[in-house]
Amino acid sequence: MSESVAPNLIAAVDEARQWDRLMQMAKLGAIPGDGVNRPCLSPLDREARRLLIGWAEALGLAVATDELGNLFLRHEGSDPEAAPVLTGSHMDSQPNGGRFDGIWGVLAGLEAVQAIREAGLATRRPIEVVAWTNEEGGRYAPGCMGSMAWSGFAKPDSWDAVVDPDGIPFRAALDEHLAAEADLPRRPLGAYRPHAYVEAHIEQGPRLESGGLDIGVVTGIQGSRWFLVEIEGKTDHAGTTPLSQRQDAVQDMVRAITALNRLMQDPADVLRFTVGKVEVFPNSSNTVADRARFTIDFRHPDKDVLLARGAAIPGVIQAALTSCRATVTERFFALPVEFQPEVPGAVERAALAQGLKPLRMPSGAFHDAQFLVPLCPSGMIFVPCRDGVSHHPSEYSTPEQLAKGTRVLAAALLELAA
Amino acid sequence: MSESVAPNLIAAVDEARQWDRLMQMAKLGAIPGDGVNRPCLSPLDREARRLLIGWAEALGLAVATDELGNLFLRHEGSDPEAAPVLTGSHMDSQPNGGRFDGIWGVLAGLEAVQAIREAGLATRRPIEVVAWTNEEGGRYAPGCMGSMAWSGFAKPDSWDAVVDPDGIPFRAALDEHLAAEADLPRRPLGAYRPHAYVEAHIEQGPRLESGGLDIGVVTGIQGSRWFLVEIEGKTDHAGTTPLSQRQDAVQDMVRAITALNRLMQDPADVLRFTVGKVEVFPNSSNTVADRARFTIDFRHPDKDVLLARGAAIPGVIQAALTSCRATVTERFFALPVEFQPEVPGAVERAALAQGLKPLRMPSGAFHDAQFLVPLCPSGMIFVPCRDGVSHHPSEYSTPEQLAKGTRVLAAALLELAA
Repeated sequence: MSESVAPNLIAAVDEARQWDRLMQMAKLGAIPGDGVNRPCLSPLDREARRLLIGWAEALGLAVATDELGNLFLRHEGSDPEAAPVLTGSHMDSQPNGGRFDGIWGVLAGLEAVQAIREAGLATRRPIEVVAWTNEEGGRYAPGCMGSMAWSGFAKPDSWDAVVDPDGIPFRAALDEHLAAEADLPRRPLGAYRPHAYVEAHIEQGPRLESGGLDIGVVTGIQGSRWFLVEIEGKTDHAGTTPLSQRQDAVQDMVRAITALNRLMQDPADVLRFTVGKVEVFPNSSNTVADRARFTIDFRHPDKDVLLARGAAIPGVIQAALTSCRATVTERFFALPVEFQPEVPGAVERAALAQGLKPLRMPSGAFHDAQFLVPLCPSGMIFVPCRDGVSHHPSEYSTPEQLAKGTRVLAAALLELAA
Repeated sequence: MSESVAPNLIAAVDEARQWDRLMQMAKLGAIPGDGVNRPCLSPLDREARRLLIGWAEALGLAVATDELGNLFLRHEGSDPEAAPVLTGSHMDSQPNGGRFDGIWGVLAGLEAVQAIREAGLATRRPIEVVAWTNEEGGRYAPGCMGSMAWSGFAKPDSWDAVVDPDGIPFRAALDEHLAAEADLPRRPLGAYRPHAYVEAHIEQGPRLESGGLDIGVVTGIQGSRWFLVEIEGKTDHAGTTPLSQRQDAVQDMVRAITALNRLMQDPADVLRFTVGKVEVFPNSSNTVADRARFTIDFRHPDKDVLLARGAAIPGVIQAALTSCRATVTERFFALPVEFQPEVPGAVERAALAQGLKPLRMPSGAFHDAQFLVPLCPSGMIFVPCRDGVSHHPSEYSTPEQLAKGTRVLAAALLELAA
């Protein structure tokens, strides 16, 4: 079917319109170097959502939210009772992020639905475009809160006490957000089981670009575990206290990270281990620190490695300390997922039918898509990004690369919603 | 002379009045746990200075400031042309500091002068109580800016471009401060060469308390060197970028600190090496950090060790890096000083005359006193502090311990100003 309708649909995907919307969104939270800092549940996030809602309503889509702030834009099907096909991504960014990570997946969903409608192509199933709350985990850790709660992977009140860098609890930020959007129809969390889920995203790695390829047909997502390590020692004067008598939290943090590096050694270079966030208190140059906190981001595509080395983390840290105490808290744990064949198949067929060059590949980054896997056939579409860079202002994909991705998404949605 | 007048003078030092003033000051910038956070050149700092000025004016002392914001309270001598005896300390605190570090030395000077006046004891020389600007270096590094500029050790514009954590340059903060105190008489920087300088301070170490002693007769101050290390790498996505391809600023920081620990090994445990401040950017748990900054506080009483190991720091850091670049900037360098015999002699005599138990000892912490050494006979009086703790809200000395220190200061000032 998709092959016969493809010409109409492909022509209806408007490269310039999509790019223009992306650039309008990029102004909301713009930071130097073409970057974006748009924290979840912030006034900027709400401004971006209102902009999106305006476009959706102009198109005739029905808007709804839920108790986690997930936002849904519904294109009605000829059978309103049929399970919808769901597509989308997220609108929050990293604190020093780019213009495409997340937001393109939402706007690609809108553009695809608009193209389907403008091409006069009815679908039996409804298609919904979703913007999940807090995928990045930048303001509130962990990420993917919206999709985890929606899918039933986690309880919706799991993160009430998590605070942002200003000390504002997630619960308070969410309450404020829901109050600001009280005019929008609210539906129950996880209101339905989708027929399928498709998420479009920039690759965040170099493989498509370096291979001269157009479309990543994502086959699965590696597993991720996030930990917060809190080290507590004793503050002292830097000039008077002998080193032998100190409980220096910075020094024990350095020992812990060094020991973790040994645990995480991997000659195959498949394992990902990152300490990206470090905080020290009182953080004064002439005071021995009594507290240090750091994060661990550990990922692997092999479940057994993820389980074994993740389980070893607390013991390795404890053994590395010389004078301080440490608390290790796991804040995020997602096993590796393999997407069921339906969505990757539809994506690959659409790419090939449009004369594009696809590559089957796993995702190194985690995405909301992985929490949809238990609910329905799921998958993702990647497009190349320059130098593989993301989570940085210099993150970039061309208007043409993004339009190709949206055309594949539109055709895949049409097939899945037929 | 001091022995004959001691009874009058000792009785005139009012333990309760001094404690009450300390507790009034401690309200300005009070933080949980009985602590104080009163950054230099802040509105809180100015509020504390106005409180002090009020007490000084009620006592009949003349108030003056200079272009660095150093504050002087003058008790006139019978010979106004004679070189003054100078005493004092600082009023700024560590960000998570206590109620005694610095401020007691200023209030002890005020109490000593008040006792001398109330005991009806004239002095030939003027006595001035000074509050030096920014001794702690907490808001603007390095510390001791006021005394370094006053003594001619550094030019008064040396730190114009130094910024605080909010990005406010020292020059701007100082200009705002001077404008807010434009009503106070302003005198030239380093207007005179003192006859002697005496600074009272809590010990910031455990020796007096554990020895059951009352007074530390400070013989000298160990040398200090402060460095700022800035590491620059490349930001990347924590889930996608192979470890072999990263330029991870946190990892190279850990390597640099580990290498510095080896450089700073000292079986005698006399050397002090502290990494107390660490900052990471963008500081997001799922982003490889492209920048990390940390401070080095290195101290030693032996000039040769201070010179040799300090000189080795940049090379050791460079050799430890695997993928990032590092910049090492020295921000403070003070050689060890030995106080001339006059002031320690007067302090020791006063303590013994009052039946107190003194101990001759060096200072591990640096103090404004070390920058007065080239100008005049200088010295310090230490009093015990609980568990040797300072730079922390739990910092504590008893009203009685502090009054003993002030009585010794009063007698020493009287002898030096005779």
